Amino acid sequence: MSEQMHRILLASRPEGAPSLENFRHDSCPMPDPGTDEVLVKAEYMSLDPYMRGRMSPSESYVPPIEVGAPMQGGAVGEVLRSNHADFAPGDKVYGMFGWASHGCLPGSELQKLAPALQPSSLALGALGMPGFTGWHGLHAYGRPKAGETLVVGAATGPVGSMVGQLAKAAGLRVVGVAGGAEKCALAVESFGFDACLDHRAYAQVDALKAALSEVCPKGIDIYFENLGGKLLEAVLPLMNPMGRIPLCGMIAWYDGSPVSGLSAPDLWRAMLVKQLSVTGFIIANHFDQYPAFLEEVGPMLASGKIRFLEDVAEGLENAPAAFLSMLKGGNTGKQLVKLT
Amino acid sequence: MSEQMHRILLASRPEGAPSLENFRHDSCPMPDPGTDEVLVKAEYMSLDPYMRGRMSPSESYVPPIEVGAPMQGGAVGEVLRSNHADFAPGDKVYGMFGWASHGCLPGSELQKLAPALQPSSLALGALGMPGFTGWHGLHAYGRPKAGETLVVGAATGPVGSMVGQLAKAAGLRVVGVAGGAEKCALAVESFGFDACLDHRAYAQVDALKAALSEVCPKGIDIYFENLGGKLLEAVLPLMNPMGRIPLCGMIAWYDGSPVSGLSAPDLWRAMLVKQLSVTGFIIANHFDQYPAFLEEVGPMLASGKIRFLEDVAEGLENAPAAFLSMLKGGNTGKQLVKLT
Repeated sequence: MSEQMHRILLASRPEGAPSLENFRHDSCPMPDPGTDEVLVKAEYMSLDPYMRGRMSPSESYVPPIEVGAPMQGGAVGEVLRSNHADFAPGDKVYGMFGWASHGCLPGSELQKLAPALQPSSLALGALGMPGFTGWHGLHAYGRPKAGETLVVGAATGPVGSMVGQLAKAAGLRVVGVAGGAEKCALAVESFGFDACLDHRAYAQVDALKAALSEVCPKGIDIYFENLGGKLLEAVLPLMNPMGRIPLCGMIAWYDGSPVSGLSAPDLWRAMLVKQLSVTGFIIANHFDQYPAFLEEVGPMLASGKIRFLEDVAEGLENAPAAFLSMLKGGNTGKQLVKLT
Repeated sequence: MSEQMHRILLASRPEGAPSLENFRHDSCPMPDPGTDEVLVKAEYMSLDPYMRGRMSPSESYVPPIEVGAPMQGGAVGEVLRSNHADFAPGDKVYGMFGWASHGCLPGSELQKLAPALQPSSLALGALGMPGFTGWHGLHAYGRPKAGETLVVGAATGPVGSMVGQLAKAAGLRVVGVAGGAEKCALAVESFGFDACLDHRAYAQVDALKAALSEVCPKGIDIYFENLGGKLLEAVLPLMNPMGRIPLCGMIAWYDGSPVSGLSAPDLWRAMLVKQLSVTGFIIANHFDQYPAFLEEVGPMLASGKIRFLEDVAEGLENAPAAFLSMLKGGNTGKQLVKLT
């Protein structure tokens, strides 16, 4: 029997919250790299909330994953065989290999990692798509000014922790929201947030709003939006005039969860009356800024001025469970899968 | 009996659509201007959709009008008596006199009109708050580029017609939406829109969307939002990636009208997936730009490159009926009341 590679496929589309039944393990013959192609053994793969959107059939910024096709996503790994002049066996690379033990892609679709980038998993988190999302959204659309107040959810996640630390470095008051007392302590103690609220302690929007109001005595100037749902509803009335909302995700609403008390007219009215500027963005369309991000944030990470946190599941077969847990906030830090 | 002035008061708050019963005529003694104050006989007063918001008790960008207090609004008129060095009888001025035959305000709250500004009613429309709203919103938040497509509702109104004509002058394809075939013909023939759709001909969102799609073959890059409701719902799916929405009003939603099929998560998702930039703004906070507006648009009006249209009701007593009619789209240009 020829050598095999392993993958996780989308077995069926979720209705509401996804479950293990929506995924299927699969093996297939190891691909043979063609002209200009490179065969890579994956070392770490990334699990990200946006993947939930790709499982649904509805319009998104990229076509949905077909039922029966491999789950998509980014990973880092080591080149095994190369038919491309720029890559040699042993090189560390990043590419969209999907949820798989190996990837075989044209060299033009791979990025070589600098040998100094250690651990290589950083290319999936703090120095990868999530960190870059936080940096770009904060600067391009949040337009932070010293003395202002910023709120961000999923505060210990790879986007939220980057946003909070960068905003703190820019002289803002930074308030996080996270699930559970442990994460909140981490946000304050490790990431330097001024305060972090446990949303589980405030079941009702009004209670969350009152708690936010206490820790944001001057109102909220920037709400970095990656959640939607209850947090958005609590934040809106506290936004200051001419506040900014960079909008990169809405994990609370990906499942079509029961809708809050917020209607479309309510949302529109708040944006008008408070003169808010809300900008949706998809980081994949801003990679021209990636070098500037690396130049600014790379040294901050190296010097320890910016910290990062990883949550590593072991083995491809555990990717679906780790993904489901992450969607419910079970991770603390950037969720990765280590491929063994 | 001393000389009297006349006013229209807010008699009660509307529930849903306002009606004549919400207004009451009142007379009171003619005010005697104090130190630095100026007494003005109003000639034209402005009726604007934003006034509907002020009748409601809910939070807005200014406090609501108290029940029993005069309706608020801008007007132009002639100075009768002045205790302020900058004003003399006979001067034409603009001020927030409310719905009233006369106004008595500190000179610091009045703007003198240039004698060249003829008719003086221009200061309430094309060269006043509505024209300025269109200019500022289009340029600051719409960021128009030649070759793009813009959609605006209330196309023959003072905001919509300014937006459309400025966008046309900037090289955009301009599509209006208005109520009735006559207004649509006017938008195309007088204001130079490329197309104008009669929203009354499309009762369902899907029909309006299909019609818009035909007249916007390259999608929509800028939606200048002054309506909300059905038009917003039809426009959203047609927005191009990285489209812009300047948001200055939502007349269709001021009454808390039955909400469309659009939920808050739908709206948020469209903004994320299409990477839209939506900016709410209140023109009163941008008057530092007013001189630049006058400098650019004044000559365009004088030369006939930009046209304007006024709809004039006669007599203060007819202001409430004209206002109610305007809220239902009964006017065809800037709605004014001539005070006799």
